[in-house]
Amino acid sequence: MEVLTPEDTARVLAEALPYIHRFRGKVVVVKYGGHSMGKEGQNDFAADVVLLRTVGILPVVVHGGGPQISELMERLGKVPELRDGLRVTDAETLDIARMVLVGKVNRDLVGAINVHAPWAVGLSGEDAGLITAEAADPDLGFVGKVGAMNVSILERLLAEELVPVIATIGSDAAGQAYNINADTVAAAVAVALGAVKLVYLTDVEGIRSVPDDESTLQRTLSSSELQELIDGGAVGTGMIPKASGCLSALAAGVAQAHVLDGRLPHALLLELFTPDGIGTMVTP
Amino acid sequence: MEVLTPEDTARVLAEALPYIHRFRGKVVVVKYGGHSMGKEGQNDFAADVVLLRTVGILPVVVHGGGPQISELMERLGKVPELRDGLRVTDAETLDIARMVLVGKVNRDLVGAINVHAPWAVGLSGEDAGLITAEAADPDLGFVGKVGAMNVSILERLLAEELVPVIATIGSDAAGQAYNINADTVAAAVAVALGAVKLVYLTDVEGIRSVPDDESTLQRTLSSSELQELIDGGAVGTGMIPKASGCLSALAAGVAQAHVLDGRLPHALLLELFTPDGIGTMVTP
Amino acid sequence: MEVLTPEDTARVLAEALPYIHRFRGKVVVVKYGGHSMGKEGQNDFAADVVLLRTVGILPVVVHGGGPQISELMERLGKVPELRDGLRVTDAETLDIARMVLVGKVNRDLVGAINVHAPWAVGLSGEDAGLITAEAADPDLGFVGKVGAMNVSILERLLAEELVPVIATIGSDAAGQAYNINADTVAAAVAVALGAVKLVYLTDVEGIRSVPDDESTLQRTLSSSELQELIDGGAVGTGMIPKASGCLSALAAGVAQAHVLDGRLPHALLLELFTPDGIGTMVTP
Amino acid sequence: MEVLTPEDTARVLAEALPYIHRFRGKVVVVKYGGHSMGKEGQNDFAADVVLLRTVGILPVVVHGGGPQISELMERLGKVPELRDGLRVTDAETLDIARMVLVGKVNRDLVGAINVHAPWAVGLSGEDAGLITAEAADPDLGFVGKVGAMNVSILERLLAEELVPVIATIGSDAAGQAYNINADTVAAAVAVALGAVKLVYLTDVEGIRSVPDDESTLQRTLSSSELQELIDGGAVGTGMIPKASGCLSALAAGVAQAHVLDGRLPHALLLELFTPDGIGTMVTP
Amino acid sequence: MEVLTPEDTARVLAEALPYIHRFRGKVVVVKYGGHSMGKEGQNDFAADVVLLRTVGILPVVVHGGGPQISELMERLGKVPELRDGLRVTDAETLDIARMVLVGKVNRDLVGAINVHAPWAVGLSGEDAGLITAEAADPDLGFVGKVGAMNVSILERLLAEELVPVIATIGSDAAGQAYNINADTVAAAVAVALGAVKLVYLTDVEGIRSVPDDESTLQRTLSSSELQELIDGGAVGTGMIPKASGCLSALAAGVAQAHVLDGRLPHALLLELFTPDGIGTMVTP
Amino acid sequence: MEVLTPEDTARVLAEALPYIHRFRGKVVVVKYGGHSMGKEGQNDFAADVVLLRTVGILPVVVHGGGPQISELMERLGKVPELRDGLRVTDAETLDIARMVLVGKVNRDLVGAINVHAPWAVGLSGEDAGLITAEAADPDLGFVGKVGAMNVSILERLLAEELVPVIATIGSDAAGQAYNINADTVAAAVAVALGAVKLVYLTDVEGIRSVPDDESTLQRTLSSSELQELIDGGAVGTGMIPKASGCLSALAAGVAQAHVLDGRLPHALLLELFTPDGIGTMVTP
Repeated sequence: MEVLTPEDTARVLAEALPYIHRFRGKVVVVKYGGHSMGKEGQNDFAADVVLLRTVGILPVVVHGGGPQISELMERLGKVPELRDGLRVTDAETLDIARMVLVGKVNRDLVGAINVHAPWAVGLSGEDAGLITAEAADPDLGFVGKVGAMNVSILERLLAEELVPVIATIGSDAAGQAYNINADTVAAAVAVALGAVKLVYLTDVEGIRSVPDDESTLQRTLSSSELQELIDGGAVGTGMIPKASGCLSALAAGVAQAHVLDGRLPHALLLELFTPDGIGTMVTP
Repeated sequence: MEVLTPEDTARVLAEALPYIHRFRGKVVVVKYGGHSMGKEGQNDFAADVVLLRTVGILPVVVHGGGPQISELMERLGKVPELRDGLRVTDAETLDIARMVLVGKVNRDLVGAINVHAPWAVGLSGEDAGLITAEAADPDLGFVGKVGAMNVSILERLLAEELVPVIATIGSDAAGQAYNINADTVAAAVAVALGAVKLVYLTDVEGIRSVPDDESTLQRTLSSSELQELIDGGAVGTGMIPKASGCLSALAAGVAQAHVLDGRLPHALLLELFTPDGIGTMVTP
Repeated sequence: MEVLTPEDTARVLAEALPYIHRFRGKVVVVKYGGHSMGKEGQNDFAADVVLLRTVGILPVVVHGGGPQISELMERLGKVPELRDGLRVTDAETLDIARMVLVGKVNRDLVGAINVHAPWAVGLSGEDAGLITAEAADPDLGFVGKVGAMNVSILERLLAEELVPVIATIGSDAAGQAYNINADTVAAAVAVALGAVKLVYLTDVEGIRSVPDDESTLQRTLSSSELQELIDGGAVGTGMIPKASGCLSALAAGVAQAHVLDGRLPHALLLELFTPDGIGTMVTP
Repeated sequence: MEVLTPEDTARVLAEALPYIHRFRGKVVVVKYGGHSMGKEGQNDFAADVVLLRTVGILPVVVHGGGPQISELMERLGKVPELRDGLRVTDAETLDIARMVLVGKVNRDLVGAINVHAPWAVGLSGEDAGLITAEAADPDLGFVGKVGAMNVSILERLLAEELVPVIATIGSDAAGQAYNINADTVAAAVAVALGAVKLVYLTDVEGIRSVPDDESTLQRTLSSSELQELIDGGAVGTGMIPKASGCLSALAAGVAQAHVLDGRLPHALLLELFTPDGIGTMVTP
Repeated sequence: MEVLTPEDTARVLAEALPYIHRFRGKVVVVKYGGHSMGKEGQNDFAADVVLLRTVGILPVVVHGGGPQISELMERLGKVPELRDGLRVTDAETLDIARMVLVGKVNRDLVGAINVHAPWAVGLSGEDAGLITAEAADPDLGFVGKVGAMNVSILERLLAEELVPVIATIGSDAAGQAYNINADTVAAAVAVALGAVKLVYLTDVEGIRSVPDDESTLQRTLSSSELQELIDGGAVGTGMIPKASGCLSALAAGVAQAHVLDGRLPHALLLELFTPDGIGTMVTP
Repeated sequence: MEVLTPEDTARVLAEALPYIHRFRGKVVVVKYGGHSMGKEGQNDFAADVVLLRTVGILPVVVHGGGPQISELMERLGKVPELRDGLRVTDAETLDIARMVLVGKVNRDLVGAINVHAPWAVGLSGEDAGLITAEAADPDLGFVGKVGAMNVSILERLLAEELVPVIATIGSDAAGQAYNINADTVAAAVAVALGAVKLVYLTDVEGIRSVPDDESTLQRTLSSSELQELIDGGAVGTGMIPKASGCLSALAAGVAQAHVLDGRLPHALLLELFTPDGIGTMVTP
């Protein structure tokens, strides 16, 4: 890393201007898939979130934590069981998932952000009625889907210049908790808040037209092109919930959805504040 | 339970008037020691919290969860070790404590309240810089004490008619988390918010002048009388942090501190809204 | 009156919760027919009004004062003359009515409330253009009916946490005052403020299907059932303006209208805050 | 009354500018002694009050009504008894005074103002705890003096662009009402509201240095000069409460106090908006 | 100028009441054609503007400055060229026009107002995007017409009790400035602000049906009558932009448009606050 | 200019974070000495001002225009005369200075900024009483010094997210205008607004300890070091007002004062948002 000239430095700052201007006061929902980024990646991400907020953008972070759930289950002698990518969740598994998501992954993210500025507030869908959940499939136990969203708590925190960090546990009217897919929740939050962008930070460079072929990375896709790729089986299983989240968010008015490689340092900054962006951008 | 006459019913309601009036718009901090109350006791407590908020009182709930932490430690093959009532806390124990407090006990309380009205928001001291912690004693590892409080997030939530439910994890400037005694945090929160009352809900009837003798229950104590009981060794080990919390809160301007038997149904309502109150009341 | 158990006391308080919650921030218009209640009844009523306001309900009191007007007329050597229940009102009678309603009955009610908390503000329909009146019938002189309501003064006082107490004198554009039936004004105020309840406090237990037979007290009536009772002549003359007020308020969106026995201590509290209520409730 | 030239008209308007500017947003308390002005005088006064409010001045009207009280007493067969200018007031006399002041004189003034614009709101000292009274002298019965003022209701009404019209009945903590001298109340209101002017509208041209000699009218007096006139016995009995009110108001920071002849049409306008003013002006 | 009687003075003030009341809180746009009024006329005008604001009316001043532009051009050796009353404006002429309008005429007006009260803020259409201009006719150079108005800066200043004084320079999206006819801008500002009145202060008494015949001055005209006068050629060239401004403002909802003789002292006051008004009033 | 790597780009953006955070919501006063920068330099400056505002910093621009004033004077046949660097200013010269500063230089700056975002509002010290001036020296004519500042108009505009651009003409109570040194006004504005930074953009690299020796550029100076340089005669005449401005601003609480080379593209961005800064920084 060599020393930049003042001209280069000034140019980067000046080029960022129209983007900062454009996204100011707008909500950007970021699904953080942090398990593959490590401690340093998480710190970079936290710094980026604080930067967005600093310049007047309203970031909302949504996260999952599947691998960490499986790890604690195994330590407690339970065998994780997945069907079609969804975890069979009995009452004990739900307790474990909730402890891991709310009490560990969420805490780590909140802590990482608050080292920079004390703006992060951790939430789950249970707080202030944020996510009313219902059972997704009786056979899967306490795996939920989003029944209704009440994002007033998010709007209040955003109005107070705070950064909501959401663990994707919801509850039904009787107070029963459910574990919900984080990719899906991220899209629902983006829609409910009228977000300008939905960003999936993941561990691949973006969406490819041929899953195994890096050279087929798509820089931009329309909704219909993405739908075709899905229909044609070209989107891998792990990418399906993200791709579906992009499509549903765009259909409901979100202007742009992105799949980025979160392993790239400051991926969020590069995507939002440079003319070229990175990863895959999907537009309506 | 027989049917009350209209006169009796009306009298209870009318007697509650001056108390509701007196505490309206005031903060009441309740330390919930829920482990001995069971599921039903928790539901009654949650209903009471909602009632307080409904009539314009601003309840803030603080909770611990020692037994639940020990239980998960044991399931994960760790042996809990306590020195002078404080848990030796290595990094793994801290992780477990945080998962249990934030991801289980806090969630259960939030869920129980939100079945009645979607007003509860779970927090730990890590959120929005609420509690800046520092190590209490190097030999104990990540056991913290309160370094500084920034209660603006609580004030914001209270202003929005929400009910903060606080798990007593704090963090230092570097983002390192610490487990902090909940009795102590409750007193610190009461002081920082200018609470009118600090209430410890526990599993004894109140403070006794002879620990083993039920008949020595004290209905009212002054700060100096309580200090004398402590100095004379009449206050049991488990009650010491609560008694100290009462004294420090009263010294800093909280008007009344209480130790109540949380097993009595609707103990909070009886204490706040009836002429006689219950348990032990300590005043300056 | 025996001592209640803590369980009974707690139950009364806890049962009141959903009702307090439901009526919080809502307007309840109470027509106070105080002449038959005596000094003590007025004090109980005043205490109840303060309680409603204390728990966040917005009471508005409307009152008449026919017997007191007649009394002063007689002392001044005038013979009260009523036609179909309406008082023939020449200029001098109007002056007397206004002095009695605004300068005596209203004052007594305001004073009784303000002994508890200084929240009551007495008004007549002349203040800030509250009630624009017009002549009801040329033969009756200055007996008015409601031409237009401008309730902004009431909304302002309610927003300031005050309790309006309204004497039912109105005036026309030229400043001429009129005496208006209080039962009718109460219904008009309830409609204009979007009240959730209209309550007539009177000296009978409620509406009966056979006026002279106490055993025919109706606990609940629909609008159409009440209309039938009226059409069938089963509603006594004195009850007709109240029954009509109930019907017109319900037709305009008020959710519930009540006729209660104001002689029962704390009738308002029992009606609003207990599961069974008292008197007659009319619903659309 | 001849036609004015445009130049004359423009000059009057333009000269009023600095005065309107100076008193804008300031409180002017006017004691209205209306009994000698007649119906037309009252209408002129009402129009002037509306004009003041229209141009951004905050008028507060205080009134008495002694002759009207005596008149009703006599019609009811009671003999008015005055000692040193104060009315001996038994319970029945108080009732009469309250009816006349609140239910007649106050109503007439409110009505006269509201014909122009619906801004007047009638109050007595009993409303919202405005005047806490205490007995002035046990021998006089329910004649009160001002114990404490709580002018928040006045500040709220002024903030809402309304015009308070105050009848000088106060009440003590137990709810007992008292009749209070209106000249004294006007001064107390002016002090409590931080008024810029206190104006007594009366039926003489102003204060004279020789009571019976019209030619000794004083156009301006300092507080000490007025005190000397009082001490020298040059101020007549009826003028004493007004003179004392001027002195106490000026001593507490009111900038100017005036005694004007209310029989002169638009006396208020001429005093406030013309370079020369009218009547007697007292300054500190 | 003889001394007025108090009766006359009071009558002028009292007659002004309904007008002040009617225009309170309303915007009045005044096109100031100051070149023929002299220094003293400008001071009178400034005092009138301050009076309007003092009594709660919201004046907005728009001005031109043709003769002053020509004068500076000539001093700089340029020959003013007008085609159909519009100035051919090359880049240097534009610079001169801008210096004169913004840097001299506007300054003089702002200064004259602020001697009375520091409320005037000078603006040109370039400030905060007030007027987006476009070329009126390529042959005329930088003579503009109004493309779009963004009056939020005016609304903000008015809300802060300030008086905008507008020089009629606009600019296009590329930052190119244009000189725009002030009569036209005044009408556009009145429409955009929802003004209640548009007033052209000029150096004739009003609009005549025969330009050269003073006796044909029209006191009131409807829009259609004015249109007929224009179509019939009865309106002189210099009056055409004002007459067109009146018509377009009225067509867009402005209630009244006026052409007054600004040489008459306090013409604005006489027009707004006296029953007869002066000059020509055009109504829809 | 070669293509930067994503890592470099991200590093520049990420390094800017703490600076943007630190200056957010703070006022930065920039004296723009634009005559040596040319059209392009002005556009870069304008873009930088918009960027500062975009990220939440509150820039206030102050400018002079000496050369442009001299130029117009010469075109009008007047000979500029300077004494000790101050322009002898007769009435005509003042008119010219005002036209040039307010009507040309200010307009050009406002226009340049508003091409990016319509946030700039041009002001002179005459607007809304911003600068009350008094004569600096009778021999110099209308050359003023700052008598009093009333920055409420600036605070209002800043609160509305606008960017004040100030031409340094002030006026006295009688409305007489004065031309004031812009370096001095910039410091006074910084003090009155409690600015965090005062920046002089000029045409040298900074302050040197030996005026003619580029190699003696000082990167940081304390107030006392700068005072020593001035006392030692090491600061050139043109730099004296800026150096004095730095000292007076720092003495009154402004945290940092800067002298930068405005010819360097994006000098403001580099100074504020990079770890090294540029030019000379003076601290208390």
